[in-house]
Amino acid sequence: MMSPGFTGSPLDRADRVRNDAEAYGALLADWRARVLGLDGLDPRVSDAGGLHWHSMAELDGSEELILLGLSDDKPHFVAVVEATGDAFRSPAIWRALSMLPAEDAAIYGTARSLIEWHNNHRFCGRCGHATLLFRAGWGRKCGNCAKEHFPRTDPVVIMLAEYEGKALVGRQSRFPPGNYSALAGFLEPGESMEEAVRREIHEEAGVTCGAVRYVTSQPWPFGGSQLMMACIADAQGDALVLDTTEIEDAMWVTKEEARAALEGASDRRFNAPPPFAIAHSLLKYWVSQ
Amino acid sequence: MMSPGFTGSPLDRADRVRNDAEAYGALLADWRARVLGLDGLDPRVSDAGGLHWHSMAELDGSEELILLGLSDDKPHFVAVVEATGDAFRSPAIWRALSMLPAEDAAIYGTARSLIEWHNNHRFCGRCGHATLLFRAGWGRKCGNCAKEHFPRTDPVVIMLAEYEGKALVGRQSRFPPGNYSALAGFLEPGESMEEAVRREIHEEAGVTCGAVRYVTSQPWPFGGSQLMMACIADAQGDALVLDTTEIEDAMWVTKEEARAALEGASDRRFNAPPPFAIAHSLLKYWVSQ
Ligand SMILES: [Zn+2]
Ligand SMILES: [Zn+2]
Repeated sequence: MMSPGFTGSPLDRADRVRNDAEAYGALLADWRARVLGLDGLDPRVSDAGGLHWHSMAELDGSEELILLGLSDDKPHFVAVVEATGDAFRSPAIWRALSMLPAEDAAIYGTARSLIEWHNNHRFCGRCGHATLLFRAGWGRKCGNCAKEHFPRTDPVVIMLAEYEGKALVGRQSRFPPGNYSALAGFLEPGESMEEAVRREIHEEAGVTCGAVRYVTSQPWPFGGSQLMMACIADAQGDALVLDTTEIEDAMWVTKEEARAALEGASDRRFNAPPPFAIAHSLLKYWVSQ
Repeated sequence: MMSPGFTGSPLDRADRVRNDAEAYGALLADWRARVLGLDGLDPRVSDAGGLHWHSMAELDGSEELILLGLSDDKPHFVAVVEATGDAFRSPAIWRALSMLPAEDAAIYGTARSLIEWHNNHRFCGRCGHATLLFRAGWGRKCGNCAKEHFPRTDPVVIMLAEYEGKALVGRQSRFPPGNYSALAGFLEPGESMEEAVRREIHEEAGVTCGAVRYVTSQPWPFGGSQLMMACIADAQGDALVLDTTEIEDAMWVTKEEARAALEGASDRRFNAPPPFAIAHSLLKYWVSQ
């Protein structure tokens, strides 16, 4: 089994207590409760190299709290911090992610996605009135029309087109020099995963594909909350017509070239995505087939 | 290849013209433009048994329009109708779906998901001010803070647990008598598809699962916009502990029993979901394995 980045959280999400006022009250009063330590939206890394947790005593009591889950019956919370716009991008996060154990990255990713969602849903999309947190942080409810809003996750397809033993990788102009990755894009209402894969490859690279095979998935907590669904699609030709508003360059690579990129070989043709990105898992899977 | 319900739209989504004011203006002025006929949110079915389309001349000009896509270069639109709350459930829709060709059901599903999204996003979740339609109906923009909002699709896992040749099906109390289907639930921020499948089966039926195999997916346009991702999970036992707030009953069925249900045999043990539901495709796939 593959273990893409941001998967493998050891916390029990304890859905059953979210709507149970009594059980939830007991968790809030539990002296063993732990609260995730953050610097803005970035994780505080402990001396042992893991996430930093503090006690409820360090809160001032006015915070909105989210129950991340239970571990050994101990409740784990995070407080909603104010974080909008550019605060969501910070170089510190990439350093932290190279240090955090996989389980801790998964917990952090969940917390970050939820915090960003709360910040962007303080008002009701239906009537414009203020919303209030409910369900232990797993929802907000409108104070006017009572509409219930639940955390949003956007499905994204990320994929390799494959043709005669080669795979298609591309780069956006914002990537560091030499970096290439799998093509990707948001799934739209009214399409299946397979249809979104074929549409995106055609839109971005002008390549028509037939069968689509699903490989694996990961949650991605940057710029909201995304479900990345990694696939391989059979291309019907290798001629490229690039949409240069989306990608700056694309090329067909062999398995040897992909392997050299994943290993960081000195004579590599391109730089591969980092291990916590699912494009890395996808390339690794393709090379192993 | 499987063709689950609501897939196979013949329209080119024409993403490229959504942001191109000149090209989009030409489509709005095209005398061949077609507008989807609706009764409230339900499809109007033509005498030929397909979707009903009318011309732009039948609009009064004040409608918010969504570009569904192009077919033979002809633009296809739908107007946003007001539709909130219980208006979203109507028995007429189920009759219509049993008549519409698959391509038409896919177009209708896309339109319905987008209309419902516009109704629930007339105000900005970040600041509470009114939003305006932009990107040819594939987004709304806040008139105050300029935040761009894009149509939402919720990923949902729907799955069969499998144990010693039998599959687990369950029923909710709102189902018609005798109906059973695959278990299902919303994926949450911070989990992969595979993790969501295991969590949901454990929450609803108390069954622990190991490996998860993805089978197929479909868009589902009722109660919002969902991406249904169908999977089969290897159960590690068959003892059931039901969450009766979620499901009223669950049982392990053999392939023969599932086949009899899909065929509507008179001695069937249960009623299978209708062909346009992905649970039908999933059961059919499992029986064929
Ligand atoms: Zn409201
Ligand atoms: Zn706003």
